[in-house]
Amino acid sequence: MRVIGIDPGTAITGWGVVEGDGSHLQMVAGGVITTPAGMPLPERLQTIYRELTTVIGQWQPETAGLEELFFSKNAKTALTVGHGRGVAMLALANANLAITEYKPLEVKQAITGHGGADKQQMQQMVKLLLGLDDIPRPDDAADALAVAICHLHSIRLRQLGG
Amino acid sequence: MRVIGIDPGTAITGWGVVEGDGSHLQMVAGGVITTPAGMPLPERLQTIYRELTTVIGQWQPETAGLEELFFSKNAKTALTVGHGRGVAMLALANANLAITEYKPLEVKQAITGHGGADKQQMQQMVKLLLGLDDIPRPDDAADALAVAICHLHSIRLRQLGG
Repeated sequence: MRVIGIDPGTAITGWGVVEGDGSHLQMVAGGVITTPAGMPLPERLQTIYRELTTVIGQWQPETAGLEELFFSKNAKTALTVGHGRGVAMLALANANLAITEYKPLEVKQAITGHGGADKQQMQQMVKLLLGLDDIPRPDDAADALAVAICHLHSIRLRQLGG
Repeated sequence: MRVIGIDPGTAITGWGVVEGDGSHLQMVAGGVITTPAGMPLPERLQTIYRELTTVIGQWQPETAGLEELFFSKNAKTALTVGHGRGVAMLALANANLAITEYKPLEVKQAITGHGGADKQQMQQMVKLLLGLDDIPRPDDAADALAVAICHLHSIRLRQLGG
């Protein structure tokens, strides 16, 4: 099964496509969609929607994992990031992909076995799990690959559970 | 000139189309796009995008006014509402409409002449300015018509200013 993982944002949207066959995982592709801060917000949203739609068409994932975002304080930042995440979610849904949302803690637990892992440990595990020579760059692509692995892990657990 | 005003949200997106010719204003159409709370968020976003795109195609506005949202406290609410507003903004941009954003205070000032107006005063002024027999219902449609009037007002001021 081939899945896409998304680490959403407005400035940077990370994406990663992973193929999973039982316990074996393989990275298919990964990258980021960046939009400059000086670009008007409508154009930034169009860029995210258009490029993510292109990525889905190119790599043909069967289902999607999308990271939840948590903001404890800054409502203004949450509102802006919500715009980008909403448009990413729309691109996935309009491509007929079922979407499962994962909290950052769930992604950490799926990748490292515990929720207290730091960013570097996460990236090392992504490299290890995908059998890569190097940590995927940039960071947001590695984060998105972690979401994809978490999603495959979750699908497998659900299958095992009946 | 014909403009659309949008009062964005995830549960309810208000829209209103107003035609303005100098000082004369006329309501063309208005309504709301509602999505039930029990519907999965991806489907809610698809509904907002699809219905707003249909409204734009049907009423052919030339430009759009979009209300800014302000959240001082609840970052979680801001994030969710940001999803709906982002998708509404994308629908406008993908229909090639230029978008101007207005703060709630700017809308109030444009409609009533001061920023301290309450909801009922706003609705009475919308009814008066558009020469309607009744206050437009539901409230979010009236709010969106207020944004459209504010947008026409702002365009006119810019034209007068050269």
